[in-house]
Amino acid sequence: MNFLEERIIRDGVVKPGNVLKVDSFLNHQMDIALMEEIGREFKRRFAGKRVDKVITIEASGIGIAAFVAKEFGVPMVFAKKSKSINIDGDMFVAEVESFTHKNKNQVIISKKFLHAGEHVLIIDDFLANGCALQGLIFIAESADAVVEGCGIVIEKGFQYGGRAIRNMGYHLESLAIVEAMDAESGTIVFREQ
Amino acid sequence: MNFLEERIIRDGVVKPGNVLKVDSFLNHQMDIALMEEIGREFKRRFAGKRVDKVITIEASGIGIAAFVAKEFGVPMVFAKKSKSINIDGDMFVAEVESFTHKNKNQVIISKKFLHAGEHVLIIDDFLANGCALQGLIFIAESADAVVEGCGIVIEKGFQYGGRAIRNMGYHLESLAIVEAMDAESGTIVFREQ
Repeated sequence: MNFLEERIIRDGVVKPGNVLKVDSFLNHQMDIALMEEIGREFKRRFAGKRVDKVITIEASGIGIAAFVAKEFGVPMVFAKKSKSINIDGDMFVAEVESFTHKNKNQVIISKKFLHAGEHVLIIDDFLANGCALQGLIFIAESADAVVEGCGIVIEKGFQYGGRAIRNMGYHLESLAIVEAMDAESGTIVFREQ
Repeated sequence: MNFLEERIIRDGVVKPGNVLKVDSFLNHQMDIALMEEIGREFKRRFAGKRVDKVITIEASGIGIAAFVAKEFGVPMVFAKKSKSINIDGDMFVAEVESFTHKNKNQVIISKKFLHAGEHVLIIDDFLANGCALQGLIFIAESADAVVEGCGIVIEKGFQYGGRAIRNMGYHLESLAIVEAMDAESGTIVFREQ
């Protein structure tokens, strides 16, 4: 097991409905030393790639992507989930359905911060059905940016998102892939990588 | 002028309606080196304070608070803006009005991550009417935590939020306080600190 799988086993909580709660270290309370380790691990997994920009989606992707961007020495851009009066008219837009919140959001990135020919690394905390990630890929492709890869902290391997993204030919790295989990016993099974 | 005021002059854009756009380096695209410098500056301004935890509010506070928490070597907790099915029932709640989005949100922190007697530093990107900050203070006080201070990146000094928080006796540090700005000429005047 790698450092993240160990942490999930130690502090993650399995809830009914295939919910894995990691809010004590990842997406409500954040363990900053873990964020730094995640940043270094993605740098290792995407070593040799040209990365001009890290992109993610608010809110829980931000803390992770910031430390990945730090490792690559590049800016981070986070997609916003609804139109803000502080965003200019000129933006890339994708529609994204949230597994957690059971709703749809428009996800936007200003055209000022994503340009044709830029090489981007897409980072997010969770991958389940892949809607958020596909939205970010759609936005990057709309900008004629080059998607060098996608880095996910926790992939739910029993949902179709990861397979779909890999079948599309993208280089997807997930630090932990949950193959199965059981709320009653609290067990979590990871895919061998 | 300090490093942040210089950056605001260089890359900030004044829009009608007292809107200061800093989305090229702070709250859409993030300059990570600047985030690190902000983290170090808050560490300096709150030197000698006991800080057990940094708290902030999603989304744009997260990237900043993460680097402040890194400097203090403590966890960061970000308040969430709406009830998620992934959050347990037991939580601290405050109602917060957004200046930017002209709407009200319930802001929540799980009781698992904020405890009586903990010393917290509250961090956010903007302070205007102070609603978000007052919400976080309310949550911290609800938990019987000790608010060691509040760190704001950009305060709009011509709105009442900062004065209200200081009058309540809190140690508030704002890296830049905008006294006045003019959309037509693009000028920004900072308060001498």
